[in-house]
Amino acid sequence: MSFYKKLEASWASSKSLVCVGLDPDLQRIRKCLPETDRPFEAFGMAIIDATAEHACAFKPQFAHYAAAGRLNELKTTIDYLRDRHPDKLIILDYKRGDIGSTAAYYAREGYEVYGADAVTLNPYMGGDTLEPFAAYEDKGAFVLCKTSNPGSDELQGLELASGGPLYLHVARRAAESWNACRNLGLVVGATYPEELAKVRAEAPDLPILVPGIGAQGGDLAATLAAGANAQGTGLLINSSRGILYAEEGPGFAAAAAKAAEALKLEIQACLQA
Amino acid sequence: MSFYKKLEASWASSKSLVCVGLDPDLQRIRKCLPETDRPFEAFGMAIIDATAEHACAFKPQFAHYAAAGRLNELKTTIDYLRDRHPDKLIILDYKRGDIGSTAAYYAREGYEVYGADAVTLNPYMGGDTLEPFAAYEDKGAFVLCKTSNPGSDELQGLELASGGPLYLHVARRAAESWNACRNLGLVVGATYPEELAKVRAEAPDLPILVPGIGAQGGDLAATLAAGANAQGTGLLINSSRGILYAEEGPGFAAAAAKAAEALKLEIQACLQA
Repeated sequence: MSFYKKLEASWASSKSLVCVGLDPDLQRIRKCLPETDRPFEAFGMAIIDATAEHACAFKPQFAHYAAAGRLNELKTTIDYLRDRHPDKLIILDYKRGDIGSTAAYYAREGYEVYGADAVTLNPYMGGDTLEPFAAYEDKGAFVLCKTSNPGSDELQGLELASGGPLYLHVARRAAESWNACRNLGLVVGATYPEELAKVRAEAPDLPILVPGIGAQGGDLAATLAAGANAQGTGLLINSSRGILYAEEGPGFAAAAAKAAEALKLEIQACLQA
Repeated sequence: MSFYKKLEASWASSKSLVCVGLDPDLQRIRKCLPETDRPFEAFGMAIIDATAEHACAFKPQFAHYAAAGRLNELKTTIDYLRDRHPDKLIILDYKRGDIGSTAAYYAREGYEVYGADAVTLNPYMGGDTLEPFAAYEDKGAFVLCKTSNPGSDELQGLELASGGPLYLHVARRAAESWNACRNLGLVVGATYPEELAKVRAEAPDLPILVPGIGAQGGDLAATLAAGANAQGTGLLINSSRGILYAEEGPGFAAAAAKAAEALKLEIQACLQA
């Protein structure tokens, strides 16, 4: 199944735009779970089972596992997710970007070692560095466009001599010349709804992964107004900390389920408004 | 010791600008070494011992280890390098870039999990995403500026409305506002010597890591003329495949030593010309 078809199917079966970000943090997990050798795996599995009903996708964040020396738990968490919830899209958020010969190794890391359906990529090195990822016909990649952090305007907002800011140039390329294999999406932060509307105008058909809801303070209603398509899809609204740590205690999984459901319902309400 | 001091010391003690890139490839290693459980480690250790005399730095490339599921060998290779050759700079080439809270995890991955002296970073997300790396006083980071790949001009060469291309804007920021902690360098490909000269003019004091010599076809003499400082340093000239696979057979280590020495001598000859 092609990446876009898989994504459409995950929206359809879940009736949700919620993407649950897996950003495990050992100190917080310790308040939630009894001591175990594999806390990231145990926490991830519990969160996945609790929230899957309300989510179209999960986005494990590489650095959180890598910094803790727990990449084997990243792998077993993804294996569990694929096995138990095969209709959910798995996005490995690792933001790679390197020359073509090395990019092929990164594609292998994301798609084969971890078995992700999609990854996040940094476009600074140019379109040739994205090509090795397009060679995987059933896989996808979300290209960083306008990111959610406070300083993202510093380069992404630079006005080009040809007109318009850098991030819109990236959006255009991702919608056209870079997307020959029809497997790209974009990343635009919920903290920048006006910019999201401009990106949507440049790339009407691309799926957009939207981080920045919750801890980062993004505006959900404005995000949906700016980025959702006529079918009420086109977006993956990511929440990580707001779901994972809705309660830091033994009731964490039930609280996460509630938070994911609340976000799903809030999105539905906004779309119907 | 500060990053710049450590780098100066590595240039002084080795009398070399050569950085040996560690890009292990299992198929090629199999032609060099008898069968072993830890081929990347065995190959890396042999290359390190054979070439250290001629090198100021080593640059292990993350994707090569990650795609093969051999990150534990990346760690033991770096441990071996630090233990046996403590005067060599260790640059983990992983090209990360993420929002501040996640960037702190990547800094921990590079500087603590792997113990690198320096890492490579992608600036697309803005200066705030570089800050967590500056918090490590004795560590450094090389920021991607004008990369060696054929398509690097696609974004990096875009002319800004304020004048000049994007990569020069990055060079200026890295030399000034981003470098408050005095621990940044830049990455500029040897395939673009004219651009290197412009970067050097914007950032006269920054160390520049230069990939692209050898397999990628960069011009050594033009690179040194464009980027070396008055002391004949300021650059780290990286060669990976040209050294590692100088001979694909049992004589690989001796051939790598010869290739590293030849590059060191060629650099010296260019600098004296």
